[in-house]
Amino acid sequence: MIQLIGLTEIPEINEGHNISEVIVAALARQEIVLDQTDVLVIAQKIVSKSEGRLVNLQEILPSEKAIQLAKKSGHSPQHMEVILREATNVLRCENGVVITRTRHGFICANSGVDSSNVPGGSTVCLLPIDPDLSAKKISLGITLSTNVNLPVIICDTFGRPWRNGAINLAIGSWGINPLRDYRGELDSEGISLKSTQIAVVDELACAAELIMNKLDRVPAVLVRGYINKDRSGCIRESMLRKEGEDLFL
Amino acid sequence: MIQLIGLTEIPEINEGHNISEVIVAALARQEIVLDQTDVLVIAQKIVSKSEGRLVNLQEILPSEKAIQLAKKSGHSPQHMEVILREATNVLRCENGVVITRTRHGFICANSGVDSSNVPGGSTVCLLPIDPDLSAKKISLGITLSTNVNLPVIICDTFGRPWRNGAINLAIGSWGINPLRDYRGELDSEGISLKSTQIAVVDELACAAELIMNKLDRVPAVLVRGYINKDRSGCIRESMLRKEGEDLFL
Repeated sequence: MIQLIGLTEIPEINEGHNISEVIVAALARQEIVLDQTDVLVIAQKIVSKSEGRLVNLQEILPSEKAIQLAKKSGHSPQHMEVILREATNVLRCENGVVITRTRHGFICANSGVDSSNVPGGSTVCLLPIDPDLSAKKISLGITLSTNVNLPVIICDTFGRPWRNGAINLAIGSWGINPLRDYRGELDSEGISLKSTQIAVVDELACAAELIMNKLDRVPAVLVRGYINKDRSGCIRESMLRKEGEDLFL
Repeated sequence: MIQLIGLTEIPEINEGHNISEVIVAALARQEIVLDQTDVLVIAQKIVSKSEGRLVNLQEILPSEKAIQLAKKSGHSPQHMEVILREATNVLRCENGVVITRTRHGFICANSGVDSSNVPGGSTVCLLPIDPDLSAKKISLGITLSTNVNLPVIICDTFGRPWRNGAINLAIGSWGINPLRDYRGELDSEGISLKSTQIAVVDELACAAELIMNKLDRVPAVLVRGYINKDRSGCIRESMLRKEGEDLFL
């Protein structure tokens, strides 16, 4: 059995807050003692806020390109400018939707820049600069306090091609192999599985979102009981396809 | 808290088996009493087997198109023929990968036709003809025995563009709204959320896969504690984008 436990008593996070300490305090308040089957899934928004990844749009001077794309996207020129600064290229900009490749390599709407649950009417929140490194720092900080190696996944909601609705996906990870590789293992009929790799970090992120919700202020979820012995790898190494390897770009 | 409970004592399923009865028996053996917060996630493979959706490739005469595409895909001409019969069109066929749109409207590898965990070396398994209807029948059958309205999701693993690794997604559902719609609700700053719909059935399918695994013979998972009051809708109505509405086709 796996349990999904929301960490419910996390205060509003501002720049400079130490997320490891915040998590350890929340665990203590809920009287949760970590064990070796725990994985922590944490919402990108509080990580970004702690890292000061907020931009006041009133201070942004939009480029000519941003002004042009703003008309197609429905965003303000200032918001579009921030989206462009976070992107290496714009893949689609039509029907009020902007899809970019971010500097990390994620393909997503608006370079992951958004304004929900962000204080100040003209402020937007950017993704962490290096989400794998953010996850590593949070994990090591928690280990320092608890002596438990806690794998950490940082997540955000992504839309998908072909299907309605967004789902939660991993944007950074530490202490867990993002992929569970079944190649070469035998199925129930003794046949070797050929090509099955499962993106378990994305599935863990999805599971956590069922508890996080958008409105309930549960920015971190402990997944308890998921057995994963392979702790190597991170999102940047394992999860992102290189350009030229994708059939839908 | 949400719990993910694997149903571990499900026998090998063959054509004509009643999945509702199999599930009810498995619940009884594990001494699980259903409650109103339960959602059942069930692997496509056992549903397809119960519906006789198996094809012996030795009995398939491949078309000229199948013979041609087989060379590009690495599949046998017979396997390719079955993939084509399940598809309305082929979107990509290169690098040993075939991506089709199935008759249901799913965009996936090999029209969902596969040979893992299927008896007989030359037999492949197809998706159910109408997975929403399959989910409805299983749900209603369980209600008949238990008097509990149990939402049912049928799932399969799908690859994605842009990201390595497959994840579990819902291909059919009954008794649960596939989308959780936040539009118009207020975030922590009192700002109305603009465009956020979450594909909760896909997240539930992902959560279940963490227990199902590919090799452990756990083809059904009970998700307990997920509060979802909106029981309307199904995958075909809610989840599939129409042609022309997608930026990546």
